[in-house]
Amino acid sequence: MSEKIKMILDCDVGHDDAIALMLAAAHPQIDLLGICAVAGNQVVEKTLRNTLNVVQHLGLDIPVYGGMDRPMVRDQILAPDIHGESGLDGPVFGPLHTEAQKEHGVNYIIRALMEAEEKITLVPVGPLTNIGMALRLEPRIVDKIQRIVLMGGAFGLGNRSPAAEFNILADPESAHVVFSSGAPIVMMGLDLTNQALADMSVIERMEAIGNKAGKLFGDMMRFTFESQKRNGLSAGPVHDVTAVAYLVRPDLFQTRPANVEVCLDKGLCYGRTVCDMTGRTGKPQNALVGTGLDLEGFWDLVEENIRRLA
Amino acid sequence: MSEKIKMILDCDVGHDDAIALMLAAAHPQIDLLGICAVAGNQVVEKTLRNTLNVVQHLGLDIPVYGGMDRPMVRDQILAPDIHGESGLDGPVFGPLHTEAQKEHGVNYIIRALMEAEEKITLVPVGPLTNIGMALRLEPRIVDKIQRIVLMGGAFGLGNRSPAAEFNILADPESAHVVFSSGAPIVMMGLDLTNQALADMSVIERMEAIGNKAGKLFGDMMRFTFESQKRNGLSAGPVHDVTAVAYLVRPDLFQTRPANVEVCLDKGLCYGRTVCDMTGRTGKPQNALVGTGLDLEGFWDLVEENIRRLA
Amino acid sequence: MSEKIKMILDCDVGHDDAIALMLAAAHPQIDLLGICAVAGNQVVEKTLRNTLNVVQHLGLDIPVYGGMDRPMVRDQILAPDIHGESGLDGPVFGPLHTEAQKEHGVNYIIRALMEAEEKITLVPVGPLTNIGMALRLEPRIVDKIQRIVLMGGAFGLGNRSPAAEFNILADPESAHVVFSSGAPIVMMGLDLTNQALADMSVIERMEAIGNKAGKLFGDMMRFTFESQKRNGLSAGPVHDVTAVAYLVRPDLFQTRPANVEVCLDKGLCYGRTVCDMTGRTGKPQNALVGTGLDLEGFWDLVEENIRRLA
Amino acid sequence: MSEKIKMILDCDVGHDDAIALMLAAAHPQIDLLGICAVAGNQVVEKTLRNTLNVVQHLGLDIPVYGGMDRPMVRDQILAPDIHGESGLDGPVFGPLHTEAQKEHGVNYIIRALMEAEEKITLVPVGPLTNIGMALRLEPRIVDKIQRIVLMGGAFGLGNRSPAAEFNILADPESAHVVFSSGAPIVMMGLDLTNQALADMSVIERMEAIGNKAGKLFGDMMRFTFESQKRNGLSAGPVHDVTAVAYLVRPDLFQTRPANVEVCLDKGLCYGRTVCDMTGRTGKPQNALVGTGLDLEGFWDLVEENIRRLA
Repeated sequence: MSEKIKMILDCDVGHDDAIALMLAAAHPQIDLLGICAVAGNQVVEKTLRNTLNVVQHLGLDIPVYGGMDRPMVRDQILAPDIHGESGLDGPVFGPLHTEAQKEHGVNYIIRALMEAEEKITLVPVGPLTNIGMALRLEPRIVDKIQRIVLMGGAFGLGNRSPAAEFNILADPESAHVVFSSGAPIVMMGLDLTNQALADMSVIERMEAIGNKAGKLFGDMMRFTFESQKRNGLSAGPVHDVTAVAYLVRPDLFQTRPANVEVCLDKGLCYGRTVCDMTGRTGKPQNALVGTGLDLEGFWDLVEENIRRLA
Repeated sequence: MSEKIKMILDCDVGHDDAIALMLAAAHPQIDLLGICAVAGNQVVEKTLRNTLNVVQHLGLDIPVYGGMDRPMVRDQILAPDIHGESGLDGPVFGPLHTEAQKEHGVNYIIRALMEAEEKITLVPVGPLTNIGMALRLEPRIVDKIQRIVLMGGAFGLGNRSPAAEFNILADPESAHVVFSSGAPIVMMGLDLTNQALADMSVIERMEAIGNKAGKLFGDMMRFTFESQKRNGLSAGPVHDVTAVAYLVRPDLFQTRPANVEVCLDKGLCYGRTVCDMTGRTGKPQNALVGTGLDLEGFWDLVEENIRRLA
Repeated sequence: MSEKIKMILDCDVGHDDAIALMLAAAHPQIDLLGICAVAGNQVVEKTLRNTLNVVQHLGLDIPVYGGMDRPMVRDQILAPDIHGESGLDGPVFGPLHTEAQKEHGVNYIIRALMEAEEKITLVPVGPLTNIGMALRLEPRIVDKIQRIVLMGGAFGLGNRSPAAEFNILADPESAHVVFSSGAPIVMMGLDLTNQALADMSVIERMEAIGNKAGKLFGDMMRFTFESQKRNGLSAGPVHDVTAVAYLVRPDLFQTRPANVEVCLDKGLCYGRTVCDMTGRTGKPQNALVGTGLDLEGFWDLVEENIRRLA
Repeated sequence: MSEKIKMILDCDVGHDDAIALMLAAAHPQIDLLGICAVAGNQVVEKTLRNTLNVVQHLGLDIPVYGGMDRPMVRDQILAPDIHGESGLDGPVFGPLHTEAQKEHGVNYIIRALMEAEEKITLVPVGPLTNIGMALRLEPRIVDKIQRIVLMGGAFGLGNRSPAAEFNILADPESAHVVFSSGAPIVMMGLDLTNQALADMSVIERMEAIGNKAGKLFGDMMRFTFESQKRNGLSAGPVHDVTAVAYLVRPDLFQTRPANVEVCLDKGLCYGRTVCDMTGRTGKPQNALVGTGLDLEGFWDLVEENIRRLA
């Protein structure tokens, strides 16, 4: 791949979001055009602040935009039990002296796409509210999207409910807009992302790099590690990182084409990504769904790029 | 009432929309700030063109904005069986030489409200997509909304389905956003608007005024009259006009406070406005629902203002 | 009408149920074969006891069967706020020394229909659980049903919820089985039954008859009257009586043919009888729906038959 | 285990049903009291005939009952694509000269349980209509049920739809009645039963036994094998057999306690068994859900018992 991949990251930073951000910012084949914050793990004021903290802490020069503060239709749900009250508990940041752009994240996404000469890849790793709203406000952007590589959903068990994964359950209607948009989609759901485990040896390996980014990785994932341990697990997954990793190293992943639809019934399965992996329904394939991960290659990729960050 | 009512009309012109527009433009107590078109009876290209045609035909000086071209979440439905292929079949307009504003209707609504010193009344008489999107993109506008006086819904039988009225069924999710927004709402549903019948004597009375507006009323309502006759009715209702009339002459209306929620289940009752008129559910009242109309006073009001239009 | 109408009454006695029972037992053109109790207003132990009390009190010789004690699928709801803790608060009965038949009501309905040489009319005025279960356990009974004249549903506002009437909401799945069974149906919904008001003059008129049945009418309806007064009403409706009255005096009623489907979505409209009165959906007509009542003729009919009860 | 397990098999024979029947009939620790047929793979006339054919062919002396011919609420679905037009394509049976009992399967289940001195285990391996109807008609049977060991559902992907397994999707409302009944439940879902693969070596091994039962196994599973091959699989699962095997050899299975609820929303996830395996929802555990199988031990058990069948 000689050309750089032009990419916008849409996130609700978030521990794994922050590492996804680091990988996207560091990788030489990615041109990270901008970052939008969205309400998800926490309210957008917090996810925006967390994003700015990470960007400033690592000395990155990437514009950051505030986006949607609530889901398209449903009442808001958050995840303080997973990411803490700040949405990024664990690391301690210095005083924040950088600011978000004035433009709303949704308008930024529309403008960036409409003005772009080449197609842009969207990488949403939080609820799909910004992308869904942009697709509705300006439907023509779909032709300017290279593809959407997202973290969200599951074809097996969910996490926020037995049927649904948090990002999709937090805004099922936006997810429906995205999955029915016609844009090419790669879905990294829990079936895959739960394989991306950072155990203590991974944490120590990143810390051993000795730079700010490695230390940040450690400060964040030690928090995740502890909270996972309370749930009886021996390692924490870095869900969101897989979406960025797939962009540059698809060879590390197994995927299957599928028809994916989002359940909008308000009952037990609200927000489930219903994946027809066998073609039984006869509905057209609209997504590649991640099924398997080369974990060793994945952590090599992450380490290599964390090392690149000053 | 000495102060003028600042108002934005949001419509999918449409026969009754056009008459609502005339009443709003003509009435001395209304300051019609702008008009947004939305997809509804027909695609937004057509409802926008119809709006511009009416505004130009009557020599009005009111900015017109194009808005949402599809519903927030659901697949689009239209109503060519009611309003014809153009969305306003019947009258013949000259060549169109005025243009819509460049700003998107949703952004206009947000900007107008955020910049306003006084609160503004929103009068949506089509699907609630523009208002719903504006409320989500910029939730702070709710404090600048005087109230929302809308045509839509029913507590009795629907029209597009046995359970739902067209405007709400065309975008139930936006309607849910509006009804749960906290803004004061007056709902003119079918229970009331089906009382606002224009029989042949009304049509002839408006034509007898002898001006352009009266003739336009006639050209439009003769079309509606004929299509209603095919359905076995002897008169056509001017649903949308009631919302504007209520603004200036609430004394012509009976209303009841109610809790109104929109059914989002995708089955038989999708898009139904579920109205608790008795307080049985214990849910808070969020709307005044129209129940009765002084029909004579209503047509006097309409005639008086059509007469005002040059 | 020279032949008697063979009829089974299925009820959750209940004030208006008891009057329906009196009318069915007294009317010379009705052959009341049996009475089944079903859980509804109250648990089946209470509705069965109430039925036996009324039958014994009036010296009737009609077999009584206990039926379903809970709805087909959903969790049980009751209505102690309407009919009191006994399910028939108001009248005081002597010691009960008659017993229900041993056979289960559902099995009785199946046996009676399968053994009958002539078709039988079913008159359910409570939740449709007994009828729905019978139709599923022995689908062949549908050919032996003359018609089902039921009290339940609404095409306007509900009573137990803004969308649904109590009898249908108490067991929507059984109602769905009934309405989709192919049996001819007459539906007396709230739109009609709320017209069947017993004001104080009606109560006094029945009491003035001077027999046990008239006194029972008074004792019951004075209780209903008081509880309606607490809701701001000046009279209580005798919903269930209309179903029996329709059997013998259809001329007192206006009805419209319709397609009726029951909403099974668990949200706001669960249990709504969605009535297509205009044919808009293109679905076949499966019911006559009551719309209007000759109230004077109705009370004359009731009085005449209460007078017949020794 | 010295006492025999009293058991009723409820099935829609069906290839794997027939093998489950053989195992239950042959195993010395099982006292197979009766067999009920239910509509499922095919209409009940066919599943009943298939059951009688297998029972007669193997010379078994077990009473067979015909049960429900359609689901409790929903419209019927069948599976001729899996089990063929007869519901048990493959083997050829001689003329049928035994008959089903006259009693309806639902009434048999109720009577058997109510008259039993010891608790009885129910093993439903088709749609849960018979069990659900029995639980509703006579709720007291729940105290006489030892447990319900069923084949149905999935916590991963479904088979009839991406979200649902056939037996549950064929009658979700009955499944809801069963899972919410309070009876102890063991659920052998697709996650487990898809592990119970009969490849060609298994088929040949059973045929090599040289008796009628072994030949029947071969005749049936060669049909399944071929139809699976058309779907790109190298072996066919014997889903239903696992439920019987679990009864006598629970040590061959891994299970997890869970809360299982059936999705009754009519959309994409209708009939999904929503399994909370982690306690996240806080709902009480109502089932043991099969997760793993000792395949070698399983086939040893099956072979040993097929050998027992004369």
